[in-house]
Amino acid sequence: MKTEATAFAPASVSNVACGFDIMGFALEGAGDRVTVRRTSGGGIRITIITGCEGTLPKDVASNTAGPPVQEVARRCGYKHGLEIEVHKALPIGSGIGSSAASAVAAAVATNAVLDAGLSRTELLECAIEGEKVASAAIHADNLAPSLWGGFTLVRGIHPVDVVPIVCPRPLWCALILPSILIETKESRKLLPCTVALADVIVQTGNAAGLVAGLMSGDFGLIGRSLHDRIAEPARMHMIPRYLATKEAALSSGALGCNISGSGPAVFALCASAEIAHRVAGSMGEAFRPTGIRHTTLVSCINTSGARVLA
Amino acid sequence: MKTEATAFAPASVSNVACGFDIMGFALEGAGDRVTVRRTSGGGIRITIITGCEGTLPKDVASNTAGPPVQEVARRCGYKHGLEIEVHKALPIGSGIGSSAASAVAAAVATNAVLDAGLSRTELLECAIEGEKVASAAIHADNLAPSLWGGFTLVRGIHPVDVVPIVCPRPLWCALILPSILIETKESRKLLPCTVALADVIVQTGNAAGLVAGLMSGDFGLIGRSLHDRIAEPARMHMIPRYLATKEAALSSGALGCNISGSGPAVFALCASAEIAHRVAGSMGEAFRPTGIRHTTLVSCINTSGARVLA
Repeated sequence: MKTEATAFAPASVSNVACGFDIMGFALEGAGDRVTVRRTSGGGIRITIITGCEGTLPKDVASNTAGPPVQEVARRCGYKHGLEIEVHKALPIGSGIGSSAASAVAAAVATNAVLDAGLSRTELLECAIEGEKVASAAIHADNLAPSLWGGFTLVRGIHPVDVVPIVCPRPLWCALILPSILIETKESRKLLPCTVALADVIVQTGNAAGLVAGLMSGDFGLIGRSLHDRIAEPARMHMIPRYLATKEAALSSGALGCNISGSGPAVFALCASAEIAHRVAGSMGEAFRPTGIRHTTLVSCINTSGARVLA
Repeated sequence: MKTEATAFAPASVSNVACGFDIMGFALEGAGDRVTVRRTSGGGIRITIITGCEGTLPKDVASNTAGPPVQEVARRCGYKHGLEIEVHKALPIGSGIGSSAASAVAAAVATNAVLDAGLSRTELLECAIEGEKVASAAIHADNLAPSLWGGFTLVRGIHPVDVVPIVCPRPLWCALILPSILIETKESRKLLPCTVALADVIVQTGNAAGLVAGLMSGDFGLIGRSLHDRIAEPARMHMIPRYLATKEAALSSGALGCNISGSGPAVFALCASAEIAHRVAGSMGEAFRPTGIRHTTLVSCINTSGARVLA
């Protein structure tokens, strides 16, 4: 019987322009680690949180890593105690799926330590319990790529229906992460309650086009599809110099550029590592006049998703 | 120099549940024929219309076959006269792309007789001029499959961007065509001007899921994706016993069932010819209590689209 397990879950980009609440992809490298340990006493508690300068609560119900652990334990009838360590490498409120990575790593680690044998879809259902802490709406567009890796489509959420979308050609991503905190809950309040039918037609056409472009490796089609009629118009004013940064990405050769998740991160999909590095540089230059601290990141698409480390 | 050309364009199913105004597929067998003939005099006129019991106007601007001929002629600088014969095999206002088939056949025949050399995308642009006669909104979800064959995604209309969606496994379609006329223009007035954001998310998820299901030949995913939050709720009351007919199709093994175009035709996608025949029978039985005259149709997906006959 295992006494503890540690899992890693990668950062992710959700929405992907035209796929509001349904599309996402995983990033290589950065991610959160969660360790879950059996204890002799009862109850589930968070003992250690590192990497976020003490800003996250240790209360199990208030930390995105807590409810997934509770839910996996509940599903396999585990009645004893569990200790949780959350090691965050992803900045909170940055728009690259920090809360999702913690929730996914927590579910995967608990599944491993309790030998629960839950499927990926079941683990996603458990992880959703954590994402509810961070967002008022139930959505899995960061959770699914963090768990599965690669590009994922969340076709439906009641019940959960995740479709991995495999691109036969390597794709790269350039990101800029401004040091502004945008809380998902706040960012969702900016969204419209209704969308004009004409915009719905454009959005569904682009979402379907993105999937077709990815599956056929048609980079031109991917680029033509990367537009957003829903979240971008409502949220872009939250990100200083957003349009200048986007324009810089596109004129440096990005296939498309948009807000990552609910921002402030901005992503650009690129056809090669070389282009992605050039695009990241241009985005940084265009953003610099804001005077806001920021980092840039270049990543291929992570195709393996969350994994148990030990 | 050719003096005349005849083209055939097949019937089609548009919307395909989740793909309002963007998705469609072509049917085998049924379709309209248009002959275009050079004349020594000037002007473009419709000389003969067969197959629709005299209900369609011969005025070039008011018949969906007219404007595409004018537009192809305009694009290649042809200044002389043209005579048009329209031979309709598709019932008008039935929801299987009758107006689109005439417009596409007209564009293709004119392209052939004038040796204009227009691309499929250019021919679609010309055919759109005809579809405008039948519908207040510009849409190409019947035109594209009638021209290309197979399943098509109209990713965008400004500019036209058609993406053929190839399914690696054969799919079949069962249809019921009630003898009620629903004009596209009237049917569009029933549509909502705006859509709730929650419904937009479900609709984009299903549209993306349908494309992924088609391209991977995943019939389960196709079935799970064939739902509509936009047109079906607004239009189904126009079709007597619609829900009973749909339920009959699903319980007889259809992958999904919905309104074809703006109705009254109802289509069901099926995994084999055998299932499609059984589904067509069940749909007919379920519809019969209405007392309305109707026909049923079973078709594989036409993968060749419009063609020049002579």
